[in-house]
Amino acid sequence: MDELDIEAVADPDLQDPVLVEGLPGVGHVGKLAVEHLLEEKESELVRRVYSEHFPPQVSVADDGTTELACAEIHAVELDDRDLLVLTGDHQASDNTGHYRLTDAFLDVAAEFDVETVYALGGVPTGELMDEYDVLGAATHEEFAEELRDAGVEFREDEPAGGIVGTSGLLLGLGERRGFRATCLMGETSGYLVDPKSARAVLEVLEDVLGFEVNFDSLEERADDMEDVANKIQEMENQQSGMATDENLRYIG
Amino acid sequence: MDELDIEAVADPDLQDPVLVEGLPGVGHVGKLAVEHLLEEKESELVRRVYSEHFPPQVSVADDGTTELACAEIHAVELDDRDLLVLTGDHQASDNTGHYRLTDAFLDVAAEFDVETVYALGGVPTGELMDEYDVLGAATHEEFAEELRDAGVEFREDEPAGGIVGTSGLLLGLGERRGFRATCLMGETSGYLVDPKSARAVLEVLEDVLGFEVNFDSLEERADDMEDVANKIQEMENQQSGMATDENLRYIG
Amino acid sequence: MDELDIEAVADPDLQDPVLVEGLPGVGHVGKLAVEHLLEEKESELVRRVYSEHFPPQVSVADDGTTELACAEIHAVELDDRDLLVLTGDHQASDNTGHYRLTDAFLDVAAEFDVETVYALGGVPTGELMDEYDVLGAATHEEFAEELRDAGVEFREDEPAGGIVGTSGLLLGLGERRGFRATCLMGETSGYLVDPKSARAVLEVLEDVLGFEVNFDSLEERADDMEDVANKIQEMENQQSGMATDENLRYIG
Amino acid sequence: MDELDIEAVADPDLQDPVLVEGLPGVGHVGKLAVEHLLEEKESELVRRVYSEHFPPQVSVADDGTTELACAEIHAVELDDRDLLVLTGDHQASDNTGHYRLTDAFLDVAAEFDVETVYALGGVPTGELMDEYDVLGAATHEEFAEELRDAGVEFREDEPAGGIVGTSGLLLGLGERRGFRATCLMGETSGYLVDPKSARAVLEVLEDVLGFEVNFDSLEERADDMEDVANKIQEMENQQSGMATDENLRYIG
Repeated sequence: MDELDIEAVADPDLQDPVLVEGLPGVGHVGKLAVEHLLEEKESELVRRVYSEHFPPQVSVADDGTTELACAEIHAVELDDRDLLVLTGDHQASDNTGHYRLTDAFLDVAAEFDVETVYALGGVPTGELMDEYDVLGAATHEEFAEELRDAGVEFREDEPAGGIVGTSGLLLGLGERRGFRATCLMGETSGYLVDPKSARAVLEVLEDVLGFEVNFDSLEERADDMEDVANKIQEMENQQSGMATDENLRYIG
Repeated sequence: MDELDIEAVADPDLQDPVLVEGLPGVGHVGKLAVEHLLEEKESELVRRVYSEHFPPQVSVADDGTTELACAEIHAVELDDRDLLVLTGDHQASDNTGHYRLTDAFLDVAAEFDVETVYALGGVPTGELMDEYDVLGAATHEEFAEELRDAGVEFREDEPAGGIVGTSGLLLGLGERRGFRATCLMGETSGYLVDPKSARAVLEVLEDVLGFEVNFDSLEERADDMEDVANKIQEMENQQSGMATDENLRYIG
Repeated sequence: MDELDIEAVADPDLQDPVLVEGLPGVGHVGKLAVEHLLEEKESELVRRVYSEHFPPQVSVADDGTTELACAEIHAVELDDRDLLVLTGDHQASDNTGHYRLTDAFLDVAAEFDVETVYALGGVPTGELMDEYDVLGAATHEEFAEELRDAGVEFREDEPAGGIVGTSGLLLGLGERRGFRATCLMGETSGYLVDPKSARAVLEVLEDVLGFEVNFDSLEERADDMEDVANKIQEMENQQSGMATDENLRYIG
Repeated sequence: MDELDIEAVADPDLQDPVLVEGLPGVGHVGKLAVEHLLEEKESELVRRVYSEHFPPQVSVADDGTTELACAEIHAVELDDRDLLVLTGDHQASDNTGHYRLTDAFLDVAAEFDVETVYALGGVPTGELMDEYDVLGAATHEEFAEELRDAGVEFREDEPAGGIVGTSGLLLGLGERRGFRATCLMGETSGYLVDPKSARAVLEVLEDVLGFEVNFDSLEERADDMEDVANKIQEMENQQSGMATDENLRYIG
């Protein structure tokens, strides 16, 4: 295998497509969001990206068959404009790998004449949330304006540490290659896999890209997570007499 | 030295050979299994694979001579079909190295017209075992069927974290190169080097590949390990009044 | 993107320029010093250096736009001789990267006919300071003499562990490429971002390079830090009855 | 700078030279031994080896001048046969670097027609020593015999974990390139820099290579270390009522 190996699975004609990325990250917000999209909409796998910068690992499916660590890019054809949806189980396992994989993802985007990139993720707040704002960052000021109009928050000094990993580099490398790109970050406690935050991010995307998606299954998942959170809090209460959100461990 | 250096030691004509891998891993199950095979059957060293992706290390033999870290591939000629047995003291020391070494192992397999690969390993259960099931994963559904018929268990969501290291990549990279491959994982506590689990895995291999091997020496080794485990448990009992399996540390 | 990517932004004619480096490090002394220079003097961005040896990260500006991790080199035109000022938010994220990035910085310096390099940094003393000596190290003994005349301290066995990172390599690689180079290290506790230490280093630079800079804003920042330090010490006093400098954590 | 950069400083004609390596390691035994050799005998620096696999670091000499991290090879001309003495302040900072640097060291050895390599080091015993045996390992059985005749101990299963780093690879890679090589390991507690162990190793070398060296300064250093060890033990005794060797921390 080469350092990077892009397997072309299909080459549909897409209508003015945008790239939407949702790899694992804070609260699995980005990954939950794009997985929900792929469940609710018809999609077609168009590319697999293998790389020795992914962990040396296979996953095992329910039928016992294995799949080599990779990222997948699916085409989702919508009414207004189509999506290329990037997802997978892994981020790169080394810094250089982040750069090289992101460049490969942008190569695929360029092949399909993508001009705009939406990186989806979460931003940790450190406390359990009732309301889920979506924070944004963008490569171009005008793009930020557009997103602000769609309800995305742009706040000084947030996220404090910048944006790391594939999401960050889709903006950083993307801008240098002539893409306009944004990272939409749903607020999330950071302790739990957070379907509600994923919904908040998807709602922005619906608004900006002009499509609709049914959220029932994501809501069910959110309810399940709430049950988990409540049980943990009860256990904490019993053990310590007084529990705080901070005691919750990261659980998915 | 180059990044990878495959030293050709012998080039026997082999009859429809399969590759059997047993590098260090959980409970040393895979390594124990192939070492037992090499002790019980006549074998011939055919390849040594050196790499700067192995630890920078020599081992010292009983006569004081040293050997550079490497993996070895031995030919074992059996009645029905022959084996290429891959073993050694080390996994790759970095992620990229896992990919490159596994590709090198598959290069050797291809040279000998191998079509099928058996990666042997252990799967940790977290508790001391009485019965030793063998879990499987495979590149192709039909291959999984064959193995299921031979008593291999295929269970949903197991192993939970997928299969990592050389064993995992023999399936992941192997499939992409046209091999069919399986990983046979003996259940094992994960705390002790586990000859019984190695026997369980070898028994599957006997069945599938149509050979027989004497298990006396492996049983002796299992008895030794049991003595060790019992002593530890006694010590634990004396110290804590009540010992649980979980208290046992990984000992080999 | 290539492993290293030097973006030429401007190519002013500079008068006998020297390179002044201030990347993040102990007490952020070097970075504070060059940032203060760039705030007080007119400057022009001449180069951006991108590299996959920087963290895979974008920073987010107050207007919500992002910038890919990079180092920047600014030209500062002064009366006597001009400066090329190297700064940024990151050191290389791996050892090899330190070597390759420093070589790239020296490439830019060579392009502008730089002959002398000033690496600015801090040296940790482990205790809060009242007086701020500036320690030095240099590629050539005559250069060390010149700096000693300007009040720089050269002490046996200091800094004990040598000089690491870009600052160290600007001397190590610089000397091999024919530059003369020094590292000017302001003493600093090592617990706090230290504007006073940055001022001490800048004062040496003023003296050696024959320019003047207003320190008002740096003094304000120093006062702010002192307030922080005092508050921490009070809190420590309340908690433990008796606080020592050593209890202070690194805060910026 | 290239990945590896061998600077030729001198090219003396050497008489049947052997390579003697003493880089930092357990108890600094190897480094102490070769440093003592270089202090006691006239020597000439013949090569410096720079590499981005060394830490990104300069050391600072007493006069304030800096030197880039490197390994040095000195020629020592003796009555019978000459030595190429390899020393420095650093091992490689990554696994691949160990392989590449050791190959570079062997390149230099080959240039000077070296046929035999002596890697010097320590082997940790975990307890303070009164007698200092020297353990050996060698590339060839006949070479091991010769060393056994000179009092070197060859023991089954020792050193247990094999030999790592440059010393190990000088044997591992050296053998593959046609050198005969040995690692002479002085027993040492592992807690302290150990000049006595270094002397034991040098005495073997004197015997095998037919030269003599004065040990006065090494003995003084050993006495200093003994004072340090005694003071620590006193402190331990006062603190705990009862001190064991195991309580001593690694101190140099």
